[in-house]
Amino acid sequence: MSLRGKDILGLQEMTPEEILLILDTAEGMKEISEREIKKVPTLRGKTIINLFHEPSTRTRTSFEIAGKRLSADVINISASGSSTVKGETIRDTAHNLEAMSPDVIVVRHSASGVPYLLAQALKTPIINAGDGAHEHPTQALLDLFTIREKRGMLQGLKVTIAGDIAHSRVARSNIFGMTKLGMEVTVAGPATMMPLHIEKLGVRVITNMDEAIAEADVIMMLRLQLERQHQSLFPSLREYSRLYGLNLERLKRAREDLLILHPGPINRGIEIAPEVADGPYSLILQQVSNGVAIRMALLYLVVEGK
Amino acid sequence: MSLRGKDILGLQEMTPEEILLILDTAEGMKEISEREIKKVPTLRGKTIINLFHEPSTRTRTSFEIAGKRLSADVINISASGSSTVKGETIRDTAHNLEAMSPDVIVVRHSASGVPYLLAQALKTPIINAGDGAHEHPTQALLDLFTIREKRGMLQGLKVTIAGDIAHSRVARSNIFGMTKLGMEVTVAGPATMMPLHIEKLGVRVITNMDEAIAEADVIMMLRLQLERQHQSLFPSLREYSRLYGLNLERLKRAREDLLILHPGPINRGIEIAPEVADGPYSLILQQVSNGVAIRMALLYLVVEGK
Amino acid sequence: MSLRGKDILGLQEMTPEEILLILDTAEGMKEISEREIKKVPTLRGKTIINLFHEPSTRTRTSFEIAGKRLSADVINISASGSSTVKGETIRDTAHNLEAMSPDVIVVRHSASGVPYLLAQALKTPIINAGDGAHEHPTQALLDLFTIREKRGMLQGLKVTIAGDIAHSRVARSNIFGMTKLGMEVTVAGPATMMPLHIEKLGVRVITNMDEAIAEADVIMMLRLQLERQHQSLFPSLREYSRLYGLNLERLKRAREDLLILHPGPINRGIEIAPEVADGPYSLILQQVSNGVAIRMALLYLVVEGK
Repeated sequence: MSLRGKDILGLQEMTPEEILLILDTAEGMKEISEREIKKVPTLRGKTIINLFHEPSTRTRTSFEIAGKRLSADVINISASGSSTVKGETIRDTAHNLEAMSPDVIVVRHSASGVPYLLAQALKTPIINAGDGAHEHPTQALLDLFTIREKRGMLQGLKVTIAGDIAHSRVARSNIFGMTKLGMEVTVAGPATMMPLHIEKLGVRVITNMDEAIAEADVIMMLRLQLERQHQSLFPSLREYSRLYGLNLERLKRAREDLLILHPGPINRGIEIAPEVADGPYSLILQQVSNGVAIRMALLYLVVEGK
Repeated sequence: MSLRGKDILGLQEMTPEEILLILDTAEGMKEISEREIKKVPTLRGKTIINLFHEPSTRTRTSFEIAGKRLSADVINISASGSSTVKGETIRDTAHNLEAMSPDVIVVRHSASGVPYLLAQALKTPIINAGDGAHEHPTQALLDLFTIREKRGMLQGLKVTIAGDIAHSRVARSNIFGMTKLGMEVTVAGPATMMPLHIEKLGVRVITNMDEAIAEADVIMMLRLQLERQHQSLFPSLREYSRLYGLNLERLKRAREDLLILHPGPINRGIEIAPEVADGPYSLILQQVSNGVAIRMALLYLVVEGK
Repeated sequence: MSLRGKDILGLQEMTPEEILLILDTAEGMKEISEREIKKVPTLRGKTIINLFHEPSTRTRTSFEIAGKRLSADVINISASGSSTVKGETIRDTAHNLEAMSPDVIVVRHSASGVPYLLAQALKTPIINAGDGAHEHPTQALLDLFTIREKRGMLQGLKVTIAGDIAHSRVARSNIFGMTKLGMEVTVAGPATMMPLHIEKLGVRVITNMDEAIAEADVIMMLRLQLERQHQSLFPSLREYSRLYGLNLERLKRAREDLLILHPGPINRGIEIAPEVADGPYSLILQQVSNGVAIRMALLYLVVEGK
């Protein structure tokens, strides 16, 4: 079995079978990073371009490590130092990169839809590493992988995604993936951070965090993007933290075996208390480890599936 | 046969035989990027340093991919993040890099002559990746390669180079190379963008673009460097585009099998209309592909020729 | 024999035996960079992360080259483009990087103590590539290597370290290492640049430069960090240069076989005259060459010693 299209753009257009194929492939990949010699020749002689138009340590590094462990050549391009300063369109940049015969281009961009645009314009496979507030499929896939690894299955699990739902590509990708795999998704957050008609995506909306946490098997805390202007969305960071942050007090209302996820980077003391982030139920660092495995799987499936 | 000197500084000092050696070598290299496994062990254990003191996506990426496809280790150094912020001279920086035993240093710099300075100061081979308004030899070599690939020969072909000739290192390098290989070169552009005594380089000057295009076998449109102040050189972008841009209307006056080149990044709708850039006579993306092959050839000749 | 701890944090906590082990290991490594094929498979399948929160050409490049000559995968992360812009703590960044299974993290940071913090927080070996005004152990090790290579031994040699001792991590690391290996260390510089109680580190203090140079076997000139505010520390650059710079006139008072070191980047004409920096007694470029060998040795010892 293989993926239907040449690209990884979002979970919205993936079938449940495709998602499971990726998770299964990642299981085999994970073991490679645990070996003494963390390298296989699978993608030797292949060229991966990381085209990052937004800063990112973890995602860029994760893709770079994933590519190198598969023996590919990895080329990093960041927006600064690129032709964008010369006014070239992203589409022309991509066409130019394609002319150098890469096997896959990994794209992060602050504008929603850029990876889709490039996927249509190019024959080269595109992997979306996050586009605006739209999708972040590799994050959602590693989240699903992490939950399945811990629980053994996904179907029927109750998940609460909490925070600024309206601006979160992580939330969107997870909602698509989780509902497709039969999970029950609740979104929690201030009404000002909740997109209109979000229920149409098949999720339940709760604005009371204590209530939202009570029945959840999994809670995914979203990063409060402090770089955005949030003044109009809630009164203060302290107020946000009190009402929507995950702390030890609030955890008392949760199931005993609750799983806690966060896509990182975390804001300690804002959406998540340090004791919770570093506590026994937190899977935050396992998510990062699994991210390498998921990206190895995607690079492999996309390049070898050509 | 091999190159006479240790460096690739400009086409001004190359012999026709050297230019043809590079083009012939690049032909063998081009095929490597079309293989399933795009990698040969030719430069395994060699170290290439990309020292870029000007932003550049395509040239830096092209050199990096070229080096990696030859199995070399490639080290990127950009001006930001370098010792230049600490006030070190470029010459001292280069001496320090040489002390780490690289096999070649690829240099781009905004000041004309820097690669020459370094070539004299160092034993390490230097490849000029563009210096000020002086030379951009790897670009000219890939242009020559692209034309020869399409026409089968170069001698006797009529080429028009159009745009801001005075500030273009691409134009200069091409004029040197093309005249050496027996091509007939015409330069076209506003009088304000034409260097004094340019005829002494063996080219014909025309300021009327329609006339310049009529007999050409090849037209090379130069990028209008919008980042420069051009106010004093022509009235407006619109005026420039009308008088010197390449559009479908103007193309009607051209030979039917005209080849269109542009070093990129292009300004759509300014020096070249989108329909022309993306049209059937445009070789813009082939130029980029061939750039990898040319750079592989140069890295090979310079490193193995030591 | 192997190193006692998992990390390379500073020379303050190293034993003389450990220092000598590193120097001896580097001797074997140096030869690799002199081969036709400068690459050995020692660290194939290992992942090295260069986490640089301060700009640095030479140290980052040196580590990158060292890692690649040992066949490791090297990942560069600089402060710009990293999660620091999103407010993540350096400790959380490091935990996240550790989750991607690197074999060693090389850290440079403007704040003293950061490598120690990370070494305690992580299981991954940490190599300090310079932290604030605290330590720069790999620089001191390459200095020791360079002196020993030239003199055949270290014990009993008289060394003068001259310049801004108070703000120099290079001076501190060298003082620790040199005194441990039985060298006699003198520090010279303006009283305003001399740390209080520096004698307690086992060094002699001299403020007259002519006197300081007279008996020295080795003089190490420190870089005057022009990016700092030095107005309060001395009247003018010219005055500093006259009183503490190393020039041909002053060299006349020195022993005939004096060795001259400088960690670079040098300020020509300020702390060192161009004729001296480029002269026959200068070991500045040998230091850079030996830096690659020292870093290969450290990467090897730290990764294989796990």
